[in-house]
Amino acid sequence: MSSFHFDLLAQDGAARRGRMQTAHGVVETPVFMPVGTQGTVKGVLPEALHALGAQIILANTYHLYLRPGHELVRQLGGLHRFMNWPGPILTDSGGFQVFSLGDLCRISEEGVSFQSHLDGSRHQLTPELSIEIQRALDADIVMVFDECIPYPAERAYVATSTDRSARWAQRCRQVLPAGGEKALFGIVQGGMFEELRRRSAQQLVEIGFEGYALGGLSVGEEAEVMYRVMDYALPLLPADAPRYVMGVGTPENLIEGIARGCDMFDCVMPTRNARNGVLFTHHGKLSIKQARYRSDEQPLDSHCDCYVCQNYSRAYLRHLFQSGEILASVLNTQHNLHYYQQLMTEAREAITQGTFDEFRRDFYRLRQQT
Amino acid sequence: MSSFHFDLLAQDGAARRGRMQTAHGVVETPVFMPVGTQGTVKGVLPEALHALGAQIILANTYHLYLRPGHELVRQLGGLHRFMNWPGPILTDSGGFQVFSLGDLCRISEEGVSFQSHLDGSRHQLTPELSIEIQRALDADIVMVFDECIPYPAERAYVATSTDRSARWAQRCRQVLPAGGEKALFGIVQGGMFEELRRRSAQQLVEIGFEGYALGGLSVGEEAEVMYRVMDYALPLLPADAPRYVMGVGTPENLIEGIARGCDMFDCVMPTRNARNGVLFTHHGKLSIKQARYRSDEQPLDSHCDCYVCQNYSRAYLRHLFQSGEILASVLNTQHNLHYYQQLMTEAREAITQGTFDEFRRDFYRLRQQT
Repeated sequence: MSSFHFDLLAQDGAARRGRMQTAHGVVETPVFMPVGTQGTVKGVLPEALHALGAQIILANTYHLYLRPGHELVRQLGGLHRFMNWPGPILTDSGGFQVFSLGDLCRISEEGVSFQSHLDGSRHQLTPELSIEIQRALDADIVMVFDECIPYPAERAYVATSTDRSARWAQRCRQVLPAGGEKALFGIVQGGMFEELRRRSAQQLVEIGFEGYALGGLSVGEEAEVMYRVMDYALPLLPADAPRYVMGVGTPENLIEGIARGCDMFDCVMPTRNARNGVLFTHHGKLSIKQARYRSDEQPLDSHCDCYVCQNYSRAYLRHLFQSGEILASVLNTQHNLHYYQQLMTEAREAITQGTFDEFRRDFYRLRQQT
Repeated sequence: MSSFHFDLLAQDGAARRGRMQTAHGVVETPVFMPVGTQGTVKGVLPEALHALGAQIILANTYHLYLRPGHELVRQLGGLHRFMNWPGPILTDSGGFQVFSLGDLCRISEEGVSFQSHLDGSRHQLTPELSIEIQRALDADIVMVFDECIPYPAERAYVATSTDRSARWAQRCRQVLPAGGEKALFGIVQGGMFEELRRRSAQQLVEIGFEGYALGGLSVGEEAEVMYRVMDYALPLLPADAPRYVMGVGTPENLIEGIARGCDMFDCVMPTRNARNGVLFTHHGKLSIKQARYRSDEQPLDSHCDCYVCQNYSRAYLRHLFQSGEILASVLNTQHNLHYYQQLMTEAREAITQGTFDEFRRDFYRLRQQT
């Protein structure tokens, strides 16, 4: 019996307020999923993740397949137990990382052969193996194996790749049929070509998935190009299924994605930027290493009620960063993830109250001030 | 009016159970002080430190003087507020680090001139400046400025250095007289020469301090040599003042120190070892990177009730370590510090109940088993 379902609770223009039920709990949407590449969201304990409002995290199939290995994770009770995160988990398919290897990977109808970035060993990833790995990890939401097409790309290649990804999606659906505990999401490709996006969406809807993602975005294109793809691609997807924009993005991208009807997002930006000392605030980004913060007693963000902003000054956070201290990453990451989660909480409330346009205007207005 | 005092609550042989009252709270002794070199115990949030039983932490005058600067810390309300640790803080005098610079430092009666390890800038540290820095940091327990003598060393040099350290101790006492909010501790030197340790202890007791430390231990000597120094030096110190063995040590060193009448310890061992993947358990040390732990579902230490042992397997901790994840340091450090704190809690209980000998026997017995 299926434990996954999605309810659309409210709409405000194109913006949607929804709720996903997964095998490991409920997820309120729109939702931002912190990235836990290697079975840990870098620098954040699971309890802290929960406390800052994270509902679901993303883990990477490619990394966990290579190390520690999906069979080991299965043997140890699945990823939830392994990493002490009892909540919902979405896994990507491994495709994105494999294709990022560039010359180290070779593509065929069967799948992709590649060399490990860790030890150079050769592997082949197929749609069937990707599902098998994600099943072993015990993901609540499984993504189909696809090719994330680089940008820019020739139309002919995009068409070939998109059609192959559709055939791979079909093979994924065959080994993970609807109605089980796990949800399988299809991924719309088609590059920045409207006609190919349309074809891809139709192919996937025909197969039928529990949710649909837009892939191949946030690959170097201008934000306006991304928004245009959202504009024409999102309406092609079934309204009663969650819509996930993969690898996106900045706070602005999230607001614009929500405004266009996206329900789910993931990105390494809040966590990676945190480790590099770049913090998100209601007034925009702040680079904590700057000398101007040397003796600054203020919190990172005066509009923020997170643990970090309640307890630490910019001067201390700058000192930690300059000293290369572990706590710099720990605290910066908590703040950035809280910022993202808080943004989504506020977006959900605004949609429920029918005030999303106002919320979006305020978001941009606050950034103009410093 | 003085806010520091020490009460001896119980004795069991030479082992002592005491209580220190400081300006920022009570410390039950024997106590182990985690080291927070740069204004943070590496990888551990203050709340986690408190939760795992830490009562007082040590911060390094040398490091904080160079970065971010003691005047900045003073301006920001002192170290407690700067680092969000409301409990007691002990600061070392900076002497140990300065003398560790070797060729980069030059000693005179006035003090020590040295070059910063950060930027090569020249500085002079004197007894008066050391106290000034520790005052700016707002330490609850201030250590006198002294020379930590290397081992082995010629008797003549040890005598000269020890006498100079006594004169420096006198100058420290002059600028931080008894009866204030802050406690000042003298440091017994004298190398591994019984007669010189005796002379040093007499010199310091004559000056009069709120507490007394043994310095110049854990500098490469055999454990038996260290214990012998404790055996003859500790009885020379006033029974009604706390006794602190600086930079010590292994769990065995702590047990043996307590058995000989030490009340306070500090060491980077639990925190540094943790970051290197070496964990303390009731059965001895464990190196988490070993392949034997690859699929080991057990906690680090089956006798441990810390957060880490309650929630994570050795297999997961090995995976984090092998993957270079921040959480490896975070979790390993929490476990090791909990191990040290738990050892001290149990030692305190045993002394109170007059069963310290039995406790010490059990400690060694458990290590024989695996």
